[in-house]
Amino acid sequence: MDNCIFCKILSGVVPCAQVYADAHALAFLDIGPFEKGHALVIPRLHAVTLPELPEVEAAALGVAIRRVGGLLLSRLPCDGFNVLQSNGACATQVVPHVHFHVIPRWNGRAMNWISGIYDNTAEMTAIAARLRGA
Amino acid sequence: MDNCIFCKILSGVVPCAQVYADAHALAFLDIGPFEKGHALVIPRLHAVTLPELPEVEAAALGVAIRRVGGLLLSRLPCDGFNVLQSNGACATQVVPHVHFHVIPRWNGRAMNWISGIYDNTAEMTAIAARLRGA
Repeated sequence: MDNCIFCKILSGVVPCAQVYADAHALAFLDIGPFEKGHALVIPRLHAVTLPELPEVEAAALGVAIRRVGGLLLSRLPCDGFNVLQSNGACATQVVPHVHFHVIPRWNGRAMNWISGIYDNTAEMTAIAARLRGA
Repeated sequence: MDNCIFCKILSGVVPCAQVYADAHALAFLDIGPFEKGHALVIPRLHAVTLPELPEVEAAALGVAIRRVGGLLLSRLPCDGFNVLQSNGACATQVVPHVHFHVIPRWNGRAMNWISGIYDNTAEMTAIAARLRGA
């Protein structure tokens, strides 16, 4: 979709801090993270909401969020993570391309559901590289 | 797992208001719903967190949450929905068996993230039957 920011990331027109990729899905760091390392997992196929996505793509997303959660646990590292996905403006969906938030959590640290920022691009790039295993 | 409440629901020892079932997953209404119709989607295979679940089961969950979200939209009906999944106590996981919350949302209604209750069992049973298409 020409005006979709996530489609632009998928096509390489807009850069991202990539953390994972496979034939069906891409994961990259959210630029407004609830916690540093907060990743977005998206299908390569454009669809606004999860029920609009073919089942084979939904299955691939199930695998991708599992893998990205595993990367956060082992490489960030963190103690746990939340997965959050929103369908429709009433559910706080802003970007109209299916995306799963995968948010790192730590023991003894209060959960945060508010967007923050990285100190600088280098910090974000370094975290993405660590998650990729680069 | 003998002491797992969700395994007891899967085996039929503990009842549930079922809304969806397939070979890999079961969905039923949360008894402490954020909104009435709030469903839980669980794998039949016991695993505490998503990364501990085999990939084939994670794929099946991707399909199941898509289908359950579609049931909420068409049969509840609602205008959108959120998917939430927690891994680890630091992420507010309480029941140690993987579960995805699928939470209905409506236009013009503030989002609620606090557990509520059904007025009575009959109300919950009726909503589950509507979602099943029974």
